[in-house]
Amino acid sequence: MHELAWTPPTLQEGLRVLDLIGILAFALSGALLAVRKRFDLFGVLVLGCVTAVGGGAVRDTLTGQTPPLFLRDEIYLWTALLGSGLAFGFGERLARFERTLSVFDSLGLALFAASGAIGAINFGLGPLGVIFVGMLSGVGGGIIRDLIANEVPEVMYRRDQLYATAAAAGAATVWLLFSHLPPFQAQLSGAALVLLVRWISRRGWVRLPVRRLPGERA
Amino acid sequence: MHELAWTPPTLQEGLRVLDLIGILAFALSGALLAVRKRFDLFGVLVLGCVTAVGGGAVRDTLTGQTPPLFLRDEIYLWTALLGSGLAFGFGERLARFERTLSVFDSLGLALFAASGAIGAINFGLGPLGVIFVGMLSGVGGGIIRDLIANEVPEVMYRRDQLYATAAAAGAATVWLLFSHLPPFQAQLSGAALVLLVRWISRRGWVRLPVRRLPGERA
Amino acid sequence: MHELAWTPPTLQEGLRVLDLIGILAFALSGALLAVRKRFDLFGVLVLGCVTAVGGGAVRDTLTGQTPPLFLRDEIYLWTALLGSGLAFGFGERLARFERTLSVFDSLGLALFAASGAIGAINFGLGPLGVIFVGMLSGVGGGIIRDLIANEVPEVMYRRDQLYATAAAAGAATVWLLFSHLPPFQAQLSGAALVLLVRWISRRGWVRLPVRRLPGERA
Repeated sequence: MHELAWTPPTLQEGLRVLDLIGILAFALSGALLAVRKRFDLFGVLVLGCVTAVGGGAVRDTLTGQTPPLFLRDEIYLWTALLGSGLAFGFGERLARFERTLSVFDSLGLALFAASGAIGAINFGLGPLGVIFVGMLSGVGGGIIRDLIANEVPEVMYRRDQLYATAAAAGAATVWLLFSHLPPFQAQLSGAALVLLVRWISRRGWVRLPVRRLPGERA
Repeated sequence: MHELAWTPPTLQEGLRVLDLIGILAFALSGALLAVRKRFDLFGVLVLGCVTAVGGGAVRDTLTGQTPPLFLRDEIYLWTALLGSGLAFGFGERLARFERTLSVFDSLGLALFAASGAIGAINFGLGPLGVIFVGMLSGVGGGIIRDLIANEVPEVMYRRDQLYATAAAAGAATVWLLFSHLPPFQAQLSGAALVLLVRWISRRGWVRLPVRRLPGERA
Repeated sequence: MHELAWTPPTLQEGLRVLDLIGILAFALSGALLAVRKRFDLFGVLVLGCVTAVGGGAVRDTLTGQTPPLFLRDEIYLWTALLGSGLAFGFGERLARFERTLSVFDSLGLALFAASGAIGAINFGLGPLGVIFVGMLSGVGGGIIRDLIANEVPEVMYRRDQLYATAAAAGAATVWLLFSHLPPFQAQLSGAALVLLVRWISRRGWVRLPVRRLPGERA
């Protein structure tokens, strides 16, 4: 009886697949910006890859894991290359799928924020450290992308989108649930909360305030 | 006889308090810049915190201390959050205290430069390495702040203020005194020298030269 | 019989000398940009040194070597200071030697890319990781230089020069030869290939494509 030659993926394998989807989405976002900025082929590949692996590199550096995961497991860089190559090959046509891309981007944000929080907890950090590392792991790739493209990091301005805020809320969720749930479920719950906050904020129900400057009208 | 229920703080505790004052001042300077740049609430908190902990992160990364101190001891991030929140809440009104802020800023520069130099000496570095690490620890937070805000780091231009120069001079002082004094006194002397150089330079007595370009008048 | 009082340098010593030439060239390129940007004396020294040691710092951080080599061996920082001081002292006159500088720059690129690849191989990375680390070690100093000077990293645009591409090709060569040759010869071969690609690209025989944007003419 060998009906079960195919075994379902373990949860860990499932998370890894989601992780790679996040990598792919971030690679696309970095490479598309590079195409718009008229970088050459190699510049597009480099910006795509750096954006894709940046968040994980921040997470691993702050939690003392050397070498960072993206160097230990080659599938990460291959996925980043694939996404960057797609962006170069299809260019502006991909931009039409902006809505789809944005979903992938949120997924990547969610997964990196949650895995950053887990890493920080395992490293023995306190609540604020966990939130800080989780948040930076989620938004790190995008910040590096915008710095290299010489733009103010978009995340600082996206007040109608609760981007970094969503990542921080997800990391805080992981911290709160960690002592009550198995780590894996805490991680998934944190990632789910990031997606929920992103979805709420995209409906336009919440906006972050901006400090008024003197002489400015309300 | 329990008159001594209150014991005076140890020197180490005293230094920690000064360290936190520096963190607070750097958080204010980063968050105020973010307010001026129209970042949203979360962007203000993030830029404030990153500016506040940046110098210490540079110091701890270069001298192999993981996790960096600001992740091990949560009081650092709380202090950074407090300073950033104050800057968002009071905004332009804080800018009137520019002179006070500038004193705090110099204090932070002095303490981070000196503690970076101590860390580098304990790590076994030579004189130039000690000066380099001490200087970068002092100015690192400000450089990260200006990079994220997409400006040329102010420290590169402040030739009428001897900013990075003061940090380097303080680190050099720590190096020179280290074999003759207890480490703690060497550290305080280095910090004091930074403040002295800052004070002298603010009086306008010293200016660093700028290389003239061809065709330019003296 | 003491005719052999002078012994020829070992290969390792030879490589170190070449390494320092690369440091010197990168220091000149960073400091000259700082002079053009009107940085003050200290800003010129800092940008020159950071550019010179940046590539090696990236290499050592990604391959887990703390402290980075430039902190362990003071000759590196002295060389970087020397190059930066020369650039400040001679300023625009050095720019006339642009062709010579460019040769030094390529030499530095070649040596850092090859030594980064060796470090990554010794660290147990796979082929893509070796290429990524080698490439970043070669171009890292220049990227940091351009970020601090608030410019889009030149390497992203140099499509008529195959700059980062040359570094990646050299790192790939080291990876391919590593199992067939002694490490030292593999390293030298990789560096040689970088120089070859640079020379070919400077003749204008190869150009990297840029993705056309919609509405643009060929």
